[in-house]
Amino acid sequence: MHSFIPPQRTLLGPGPCNVSDRVLEAMARPTIGHLDSAFVGMMDEIRSLLRFAFKTENRMTLPISGPGSAGMECCFVNLVEPGDTAIVCKNGVFGGRMEENVTRCGGVAVTVDDDWGQPVDVVKAEAALKAHPGAKIVAFVQAETSTGARSDAAELCRLAQEHDCLTIVDTVTSLGGIEVSIDEWGADAVYSGSQKCLASPPGLSPVTFGPKALEVVANRRTKVQSWFLDLNLLMGYWQAEGGRSYHHTAPINLLYALHESLLMLKEEGLEAAWSRYESNYELLRAGLESMGLSVPVTRGDHLPQLVTVTVPDGVDEAEIRTRMLEDHGIEIGAGLGQLAGTVWRIGLMGQNSSPETVRLCLDALKASMRDAETA
Amino acid sequence: MHSFIPPQRTLLGPGPCNVSDRVLEAMARPTIGHLDSAFVGMMDEIRSLLRFAFKTENRMTLPISGPGSAGMECCFVNLVEPGDTAIVCKNGVFGGRMEENVTRCGGVAVTVDDDWGQPVDVVKAEAALKAHPGAKIVAFVQAETSTGARSDAAELCRLAQEHDCLTIVDTVTSLGGIEVSIDEWGADAVYSGSQKCLASPPGLSPVTFGPKALEVVANRRTKVQSWFLDLNLLMGYWQAEGGRSYHHTAPINLLYALHESLLMLKEEGLEAAWSRYESNYELLRAGLESMGLSVPVTRGDHLPQLVTVTVPDGVDEAEIRTRMLEDHGIEIGAGLGQLAGTVWRIGLMGQNSSPETVRLCLDALKASMRDAETA
Repeated sequence: MHSFIPPQRTLLGPGPCNVSDRVLEAMARPTIGHLDSAFVGMMDEIRSLLRFAFKTENRMTLPISGPGSAGMECCFVNLVEPGDTAIVCKNGVFGGRMEENVTRCGGVAVTVDDDWGQPVDVVKAEAALKAHPGAKIVAFVQAETSTGARSDAAELCRLAQEHDCLTIVDTVTSLGGIEVSIDEWGADAVYSGSQKCLASPPGLSPVTFGPKALEVVANRRTKVQSWFLDLNLLMGYWQAEGGRSYHHTAPINLLYALHESLLMLKEEGLEAAWSRYESNYELLRAGLESMGLSVPVTRGDHLPQLVTVTVPDGVDEAEIRTRMLEDHGIEIGAGLGQLAGTVWRIGLMGQNSSPETVRLCLDALKASMRDAETA
Repeated sequence: MHSFIPPQRTLLGPGPCNVSDRVLEAMARPTIGHLDSAFVGMMDEIRSLLRFAFKTENRMTLPISGPGSAGMECCFVNLVEPGDTAIVCKNGVFGGRMEENVTRCGGVAVTVDDDWGQPVDVVKAEAALKAHPGAKIVAFVQAETSTGARSDAAELCRLAQEHDCLTIVDTVTSLGGIEVSIDEWGADAVYSGSQKCLASPPGLSPVTFGPKALEVVANRRTKVQSWFLDLNLLMGYWQAEGGRSYHHTAPINLLYALHESLLMLKEEGLEAAWSRYESNYELLRAGLESMGLSVPVTRGDHLPQLVTVTVPDGVDEAEIRTRMLEDHGIEIGAGLGQLAGTVWRIGLMGQNSSPETVRLCLDALKASMRDAETA
């Protein structure tokens, strides 16, 4: 066995994306102690930068020491108690994962099902709220990574508030790539991931909790079933007045990376990043359509950072992905769940949302499809 | 806000320790996809290297994508079902955390309490097993990070087997520093951490599960309460035959680092590492005693990688730690829990277990105590 030297890849799947040298260099700086005051100062900066990215003043904003699924679980285990009803909007893989989380907390999940590739239907969501007046939570995915569809987070949060429900919002793929406005929406518990549009390595899940959510956590009848993800304990480490108390050892170097990637987002500006994503999406979409390929998600419901492409009849989707990877060093994503085998997913995240990368991707896709045809 | 440049530190606390340049460089290599076949090949190497480190043939050996507390929780949520009785040996902070895990899974924790700084008393553990014939699990910490005491893992595992109990063993601080022999002990579920004697950055928790534990997981009456830590799902990603299925996005770059640090351990050899730890412990202990300081853990129950030192009467323990950090760039650990304020904890882990570091530490401690006295 030898040291692992990864192959050169352009990562145009659903995340991770290529991490910039600047972030990789930051991550490789010497490890220091997780209770060192220099480190604690950096933790405070990360929290402030995350508030900027989430557009929130929420005090309880921090990165969970695990991937997006740990952040998801953090939201559910803290807010769902046995017997609670949660309305879960399901229009892809990650809505289904939310449903699993509710039932594993002993809650009752009422699902609002929409076709994959469609946004959550707010009319159906409202009907479910009316049919379940005792519901405590509405949970939905803003940007479904499995389909490339965007749901109307502002409207779903408004509806939930009207029916006195808390919201749990998945912004794993959205944060940094399209508008996320936690305070404007009034979203209560929100999680994201470091490896999508924040363009950091995977392994951290930024979360933010509003005052209503924290009140619910403080007034639970039962203990949070996860010790690792118990907000009451996490608060003692991340934001105790007069000294941090040890909870777990934070993933120090990953936090260096997140800090740097958030600084880069701040330097660019949120609106500038969103408009960059949008214009490169248009370039990619135009190029795909000019190749005769179909982009099934309607403009307006689309995610500029993650584009689902229908695999044409007679084309072997796995073969094209293999050719893209082996001949061109480009990773694109396969379909997940019920879309497996019928779509590709092309992600333009972080520095990969650029005209150069779009051209590279289109050229490689053309060549791969031609080579597959003539092989 | 600017890029974070960490201060220079020699990390002689309870972990993390200084990470070698070789491991930091490995970590900073370009991120690739978590389903890339090159990455999957490296995952297999990590599993094989972890089997080497744990001295086990267990197929189900992998790093959990979170810190040691996530690995701990993984063991408990998979093995403890509501109503199950677990005998938890408590001789420090981490035994207490195990107790919390049992009760949060709906289990009943029967504690065997020993004084902090003492190993687990096997006679008391046996009495508890006899008094609770229906117990399902015996849980203990091999190397109590909060006290520096080592318990007799082989004997505790033997007793548990005699009483038909599964064992959950914490090897967070032990793995790589003292003997850990999972198969010889017959331990059933074991977790560790990347940032102690493996000398990798924090954020990963190697775990290993034996066949009896896996059978119990397969025959559960209830679903595992954590989706993120459900072994049935993790297996699909880490060891599925005929293709991995996506579960969560692995912390790719941290895994590069773990791979490299395990390679380094393999290059050195387990026995060579253990004997290096032992001889540097003797150097440190002799130096401390020649300064008139007391090392309360009896030789034989000691951890060579983590030495508890009694703070002498009249010495301000926090002042000394501050002087060590600010004047000498050396981090040593404070006491935790009931030992807060009365001990220091000096860790010699990874490359820091060396005669040079021992001398550096002793010189700085002497100077800090002298300076505190004359200030």
